[in-house]
Parts: sequence; C-alpha cells; structure tokens
Amino acid sequence: MKKYNVAILGATGAVGQEFLNLIEERNFPFANLKMLASARSAGKKIEFMGKEYTVEETTAASFKDVQIALFAGGAASKEFAPAAVQAGAVVIDNSSTYRMDPEVPLVVPEVNPEDIAKHKGIIANPNCTTAILLMALKPLHDLGHCKRLIISTYQAASGAGKEGMEELEVESRQLAKGEATEPKVFPVGKLPKHYQLAFNAIPQVDVFQENGYTKEEMKMVNETRKILHEPELKITATTVRIPVYRSHAESVVAEFDKKVTVEEARAAIAKFQGAQLRDDPAEQEYPMPLDTSGKNDVEVGRLRYDESAENSLNFWVCGDQIRKGAALNALQIAEYMVEHDMI
Amino acid sequence: MKKYNVAILGATGAVGQEFLNLIEERNFPFANLKMLASARSAGKKIEFMGKEYTVEETTAASFKDVQIALFAGGAASKEFAPAAVQAGAVVIDNSSTYRMDPEVPLVVPEVNPEDIAKHKGIIANPNCTTAILLMALKPLHDLGHCKRLIISTYQAASGAGKEGMEELEVESRQLAKGEATEPKVFPVGKLPKHYQLAFNAIPQVDVFQENGYTKEEMKMVNETRKILHEPELKITATTVRIPVYRSHAESVVAEFDKKVTVEEARAAIAKFQGAQLRDDPAEQEYPMPLDTSGKNDVEVGRLRYDESAENSLNFWVCGDQIRKGAALNALQIAEYMVEHDMI
Repeated sequence: MKKYNVAILGATGAVGQEFLNLIEERNFPFANLKMLASARSAGKKIEFMGKEYTVEETTAASFKDVQIALFAGGAASKEFAPAAVQAGAVVIDNSSTYRMDPEVPLVVPEVNPEDIAKHKGIIANPNCTTAILLMALKPLHDLGHCKRLIISTYQAASGAGKEGMEELEVESRQLAKGEATEPKVFPVGKLPKHYQLAFNAIPQVDVFQENGYTKEEMKMVNETRKILHEPELKITATTVRIPVYRSHAESVVAEFDKKVTVEEARAAIAKFQGAQLRDDPAEQEYPMPLDTSGKNDVEVGRLRYDESAENSLNFWVCGDQIRKGAALNALQIAEYMVEHDMI
Repeated sequence: MKKYNVAILGATGAVGQEFLNLIEERNFPFANLKMLASARSAGKKIEFMGKEYTVEETTAASFKDVQIALFAGGAASKEFAPAAVQAGAVVIDNSSTYRMDPEVPLVVPEVNPEDIAKHKGIIANPNCTTAILLMALKPLHDLGHCKRLIISTYQAASGAGKEGMEELEVESRQLAKGEATEPKVFPVGKLPKHYQLAFNAIPQVDVFQENGYTKEEMKMVNETRKILHEPELKITATTVRIPVYRSHAESVVAEFDKKVTVEEARAAIAKFQGAQLRDDPAEQEYPMPLDTSGKNDVEVGRLRYDESAENSLNFWVCGDQIRKGAALNALQIAEYMVEHDMI
C-alpha cells in the first residue's frame, strides 16, 4: 500500500491531537509525519504510536516533501497554505480563510465528494456547525428539495479549542468550591469582554457582523449553500454557546418543496453513511451531546412534522465538534483522495 | 389599605419560596398567611418577615376565610382548587390543569389583563416558557400581526423545582471530584430513565405526546394562542433542558403580516412594562440566563432581520423561570385584582 508524507499544522491543539487519534484509529497510511506548530510550542515532544516526535516551528520550508498537509485552523492557514501548495502538498484546511474562495472546494465527503477533484492545492473543511448540520440535512434534501432552514445551535466549549474546554472545567471547579470565576475565553469576540460559560448560555459565537449576525451564523448560511450548490437556499441561524465540552447540538426546521414524511426521513437518515438515527420518543431516545462526544457519527432524532408550515420537518442533531466538526471530516477528505489515487 | 388573607399551596417548594420572597419585596398587602403543603412537609417551620409559620397539610377545610390562594403547581391543583373556590377564595394556579379550560382565564398581566375579570374562581398562570416568550412577543405583535413563530428553548433546571436544581448542583460537584453521577430527575418523562444534565443538553421537557412533540412544546403552542386570542397563530417549538440553574432562554423567529423594523421592535420592547432591551452587538451586550436569574424583568436582545423570509425577525429572550415564569406572574395577577378591587 502506498504511504504518504503527512504534516499536521497545529499539532499541539485540540484539533491537532484529534488528527493523531484518528490517524491511528483509522490506520491512515502515513510514511513520515511532521508535527508543526507556532514558535511557542516548538520543541515540545509528542508520543505517537510508539514513537517520539518533536514539534517544529512552522516555516515556509517545513513543507518540503510533504504530500498531505492537515491544517488544524487559525491564522497560520493564511500564512502557510500558499507555501505548502508551492512545495507540492495538498492542503486540507480547517480554518475559515479559504472556505468561500471560489477556487477552493469546500467539502463534506458524504455530501459533495465530487468537488474534491476541482482543487488547486487547497481543500477547505467547513465550519463545525455546518458539517454536523449537513450530515442530517443531505439525506432529507435528497428526498425533497430544501427551500428554507431555521437553525438554533447549542455549541460546545471545544469550539474555542483546548483553552475553551479548560475554561469550562476551571469555572465549574471554582464554582463547586464556592469561588468566583474569572472568564477569559467566551465569547470569542472583538472585545476583551468575557462571560462565565458554566451554568450559562452565551448567544454569541465568533464576532458580530454589520447585519447583526455573528460570523458563525453567517458561516452556516454561506457554507451550507456552497456545499449543497444551492446559492438561493434560504437560511437563518442563531448560534449559542452552552456549558458542554465537545459536542454540538442543533435544533433545525427544514422546509421542502414537497412533502417528506417522517418515516421517509427516518429511513433516509438511518442509511446515510456517517449518520445514526436515534429517534424513539416512547423510549426517551434522542441524540444528546454527552452521547456523541468522542464519536465519529452524527446522531439525528426528534424528527416530526412542523405543524406551522407545509412540507416542513423539525429535527435535532448532535455531533462531536472536534471529530465530524473538524479533524474527522478533514481526514476523510484525505482518505477519499488516497482511495481515489488523487495524491 | 385593605389587606387579604392569603394561602400558599406548595409553600416549601421552589415556587412557593419565591412567592414568599416576592410578597415581602413587593409589599403585597396580606393579613393572614397560610402555608400549605403535602402531608410530607406538614409541621415544617418557615420563618417569614420576622414571624414563624408552621406548614399545614392541605385539606378541603384549609381554605376557610382565605381570599387569595396561590397554588405553586403540581397535582394538588386538581385536588384542591375546587374546594378553595367553594370556600370563596380566588385561586391563582401555576399548574397546567386548568390552563386550556375555556372557563378559566390564562393570563400574563402585561399581555391580557382584561381576561382576569372573566374568572369564575380560578385564574391560570401560563407555562414558564410561554410567559417569558410573550413578554418579548407582545410588543412586537402590537406592531405587526404575528403569523408564525419558530422557537427553540434553552431551559433551566429549576423547571423541575428544587429537586431539579439540586440534581444539577450534585452532578456538577460529583464530576468536579471525578465521581460518577446518578441521574434521578431529568428528563421528567413517563419512564424511569434519566440522563445527566451537567455538561449535556436534553431535548425533552415533560412527556412525549402522540405527535412526537413534548407536552412542554404543545403548551407553548396552545397557551400562546389562548393568551393572545389568536387561535390560528402558527407555532412550532423545540424545548431543550440545558445545565443552567434558574433562567430560561429562547431563540425565536417571528413572522409578521407586515414589515416590522429592528428599530421599531427595539423601541417597543424598551418601553414595554416588564421587559428590558439588552441589545448592543458592538458592545457584546445581549441577555444571558446568568444575568436574568433572580430578576423580575425579562430581557430581550439579538434583534435582527430574518433574511430567510419576508417580514420576519429573529430575537433571543431570557427570563427567570421561577419569577416571571411562575411566582411573579401569579402574584402580579393577584396585585392586579387588588388594585382593581376585584377581590
């Protein structure tokens, strides 16, 4: 079997660590592995599959002989993706930098794998809430054309990386001891103004735009349209951070151009690769963030008719933010390219 | 000033205790005060405004000479409301028993005070999510007739009373110590099957109905229609429990029969009695459950155009579940009756 030289940019972060877990779990065929990060993390040791790796500071020269560069996200993508492509690597990028670039495919492998072939060196990984939504929506959209989506999210602390999860843990521990909290992470906005996430809900994920929406909300609108090739699809979203560690949940109303029955919808989700149907109200069975944490599959439930509109369904979807919402989806893109001999 | 003999049924619970806090805070003109509860709580002592009260077991005879009976909710309402009315008391009932009874007014005093006069002994207090929603919706509905509502809730543990809040606290403390949790309260469903609420989101509030909706979701539909006298109003709701102690939040999309501008909506909410506008994205200001806990006013923010439909607005509302969602609203009904000499 062919093996590939892989670099992970952001190897010490939450998404970078999950790349490593998944490469091991899924037997990704790597030859050499480079652990790249910022100067701050350079020199750190990472033990992986019985071997010790030293984290290197990323420079333009880091990508020599690299075939697949997995970028965990953040500002480094803009800085180093062109150099990596120049060096001959395929960049699979988890940042938002290139997602809306018409030259860059934005891919969920179960939804639009055909777009991968159009790449010119960079393939973008969608925002976590978008990837998780689409794993539930695509099988329904195949049954009846989706016309409008109304989404409210329940997002985990992991969206702000390790730092976000640590913040929630520290706050929870401080409160259990009756101590005051000192919020430093949430919301991740423009201002140095932070709120306690523990026992709270913060209706701001990412910075606010001119139109009153957050960047996260507009990502859901624009990325969903791009991935489905439906530029006219009507979407509105409210994104909210809640005190959960690493799995996002979304409450969704989807209007279709014809009737989709709950039974058809359930059947379509049950057989969709990467999605699990968990929908048995009589048994109090439905997806929950705790249950999907650390899992690859997205779970879908609470499927029912929206009685406020014609041809409309309500559902609830949960998925691991670091897996399907980030590292897993990116690695699946690499796997698809390997399988189809595209690298 | 006239003073009234008041009985509180369920005096030892979360709502009952809040009745006492509010009676003191708001100088409710009581003469005698009776603390009623189940046999299990009878004999307990309650210290209130410098006086010690003994909790009595509720019987049909408990309501002799009582003018105002504040029922905190639960099964006792069905059992004792007729006896209280028979004895000449006005019953303000926080349970769901009588809410949809056409003979019983269902009232949010800022929204439909005129319905109070139609009572025949019992006045029903709406479900917490409905009361909180209406404090934001009524001023908007007055600007443009509301045609459709899509709601996703973020509900606090207090919806299951003291027991619910204790469960969240105990779970959080156990997890902070690395211990396993033993969920006993959530969801409050038909089955003896419970899930951890700490660091989780449970998309079930109350029992499931035949149509796949929970009772809580259908309460929002039916009670909102009744209070607004809009039997045709289209509503769909998804109700979700999150790890927050006592304040509910709701993400709402409201479609109107004509354009309502964000500026008009903000102005209308700002001047609506009992609502506070907290809506300044540039300053990262919006309502949060932590901020509204223990407060009387409901807060509204994240007002913006829903770009997925004509004449549609998105907003976010937070309110204390035990105050405006229960005890405060009920006491406000009593205050209205006192002010208008209706007792």
